[in-house]
Amino acid sequence: MDYRNPHSVARMRAEFDRQGAMATMGITVADVAPGRVVLEMPFNPALSQHHGFIHAGVVTSGMDSACGFAALTMMDAESEVLTVEFKCSFMSPARGQSFRFVGEVIKSGRTLTFTEGRAIAIDGTKETTVATITATVMAVRGLKA
Amino acid sequence: MDYRNPHSVARMRAEFDRQGAMATMGITVADVAPGRVVLEMPFNPALSQHHGFIHAGVVTSGMDSACGFAALTMMDAESEVLTVEFKCSFMSPARGQSFRFVGEVIKSGRTLTFTEGRAIAIDGTKETTVATITATVMAVRGLKA
Amino acid sequence: MDYRNPHSVARMRAEFDRQGAMATMGITVADVAPGRVVLEMPFNPALSQHHGFIHAGVVTSGMDSACGFAALTMMDAESEVLTVEFKCSFMSPARGQSFRFVGEVIKSGRTLTFTEGRAIAIDGTKETTVATITATVMAVRGLKA
Amino acid sequence: MDYRNPHSVARMRAEFDRQGAMATMGITVADVAPGRVVLEMPFNPALSQHHGFIHAGVVTSGMDSACGFAALTMMDAESEVLTVEFKCSFMSPARGQSFRFVGEVIKSGRTLTFTEGRAIAIDGTKETTVATITATVMAVRGLKA
Repeated sequence: MDYRNPHSVARMRAEFDRQGAMATMGITVADVAPGRVVLEMPFNPALSQHHGFIHAGVVTSGMDSACGFAALTMMDAESEVLTVEFKCSFMSPARGQSFRFVGEVIKSGRTLTFTEGRAIAIDGTKETTVATITATVMAVRGLKA
Repeated sequence: MDYRNPHSVARMRAEFDRQGAMATMGITVADVAPGRVVLEMPFNPALSQHHGFIHAGVVTSGMDSACGFAALTMMDAESEVLTVEFKCSFMSPARGQSFRFVGEVIKSGRTLTFTEGRAIAIDGTKETTVATITATVMAVRGLKA
Repeated sequence: MDYRNPHSVARMRAEFDRQGAMATMGITVADVAPGRVVLEMPFNPALSQHHGFIHAGVVTSGMDSACGFAALTMMDAESEVLTVEFKCSFMSPARGQSFRFVGEVIKSGRTLTFTEGRAIAIDGTKETTVATITATVMAVRGLKA
Repeated sequence: MDYRNPHSVARMRAEFDRQGAMATMGITVADVAPGRVVLEMPFNPALSQHHGFIHAGVVTSGMDSACGFAALTMMDAESEVLTVEFKCSFMSPARGQSFRFVGEVIKSGRTLTFTEGRAIAIDGTKETTVATITATVMAVRGLKA
């Protein structure tokens, strides 16, 4: 895959840095390539559910951001991304010292981009896929906050 | 609907209070009834995405918790709830002074409980449904963190 | 809700009649209103899975068509509908003499329409919701087969 | 992956042959391996939607069956499979001379099995992924029709 917009990586990082939610959750950018974004997050008890695992909504935040920014790398400079919908499956408790969120573009269209992603828990040298996501992302123009 | 477990509301509130993620996001319990839980959250820029709306993952955290705790109210005292999967649709930007998350049990089975929920943005006197969720929740016993 | 296109019901019925799949499955239109479509189907062993219930894919066909045609009633005369994605939950076996599929528009946008629906099994005088759907439908123009 | 039940392939084929829906849709078994099932279907106008493509519900039937039978290959001899829920995305019109449906087990648990699948349209020598599915399948015992 090629970038449609050569400045898209710089732009993606700038938009990422404007997300209060990512800072609050301690999620940072680990790698960006055309159509693929990897994020990372250390374990933090302030993001846990009542068994001490990371809350499913936080795991989803990381996977959704990875997918949305992966979609953004394929869009022209005037387009913004909005998540239309996603579905997440949780196959193992989100337990580990740190977490990796991978988002990838499956099909990039003019209006809609289909993406897939996963959350990987890292516990010492062991890596476990704890959740998956499929997200539909829409390109919008002229969006105002 | 009746509670299967008369202590389930007290238990639900105790488990809710053990969730670091809910405290971090400022989400609190507004109302609990058998098979139905309502949560609330004020707007907080520390939970925003890059357009200044509440991040989809945070909206999802509120909806997932409302659904999971609604399922918990219908379970016996030995069961814990784990989210198996959910799907969320985002029909409007999550913009408002505060947000309400409603979770309801659609069908409660021995192993699986089907739930539905929604996120409502409150802007002055105007209320807008900004997202919906359908979540499948599993009853588990003997879960250890 | 009002129809955006006064001819939309006639058009919806004409398009429905061109669906080979609906004829093969014995699914017919029971009721049409702006943003809401009801379909019906008798039980047919030729549409069963291996326990003798109606196959989940057939139940889905009915729910998806009800949602897609409900979306079509809200669109202008030049737009066609395509299903972008859906999620279905199956809470009870699809067992009964006949089935009703209800599709409703939750939010109708210029490009995307959010819909919800359900499948109801009718067994004598007893009605049971056996499945639910949330479907995202896209308006497209100039689509050619 | 190993089969949990050495007779599972013979059993899977026997159960498949009892599905009226698969015969009606002309869907047959192309390949079975532990945790992976491939089905095939020729184009048939009796299964079309109103643009002449294969109906999304029929595509879903093929993907759901591939996933459910893939899950069945990993279960013990007493367990039956029931689809709990699935989500399907449709990225291209289902247009082609024939179709292949692939279902794979992502994680097989005692109660729940997580699966993923896809539908591939074959048009001459060109193959296109037209849809994807993620399905949650439950093992049940003592199910009666």
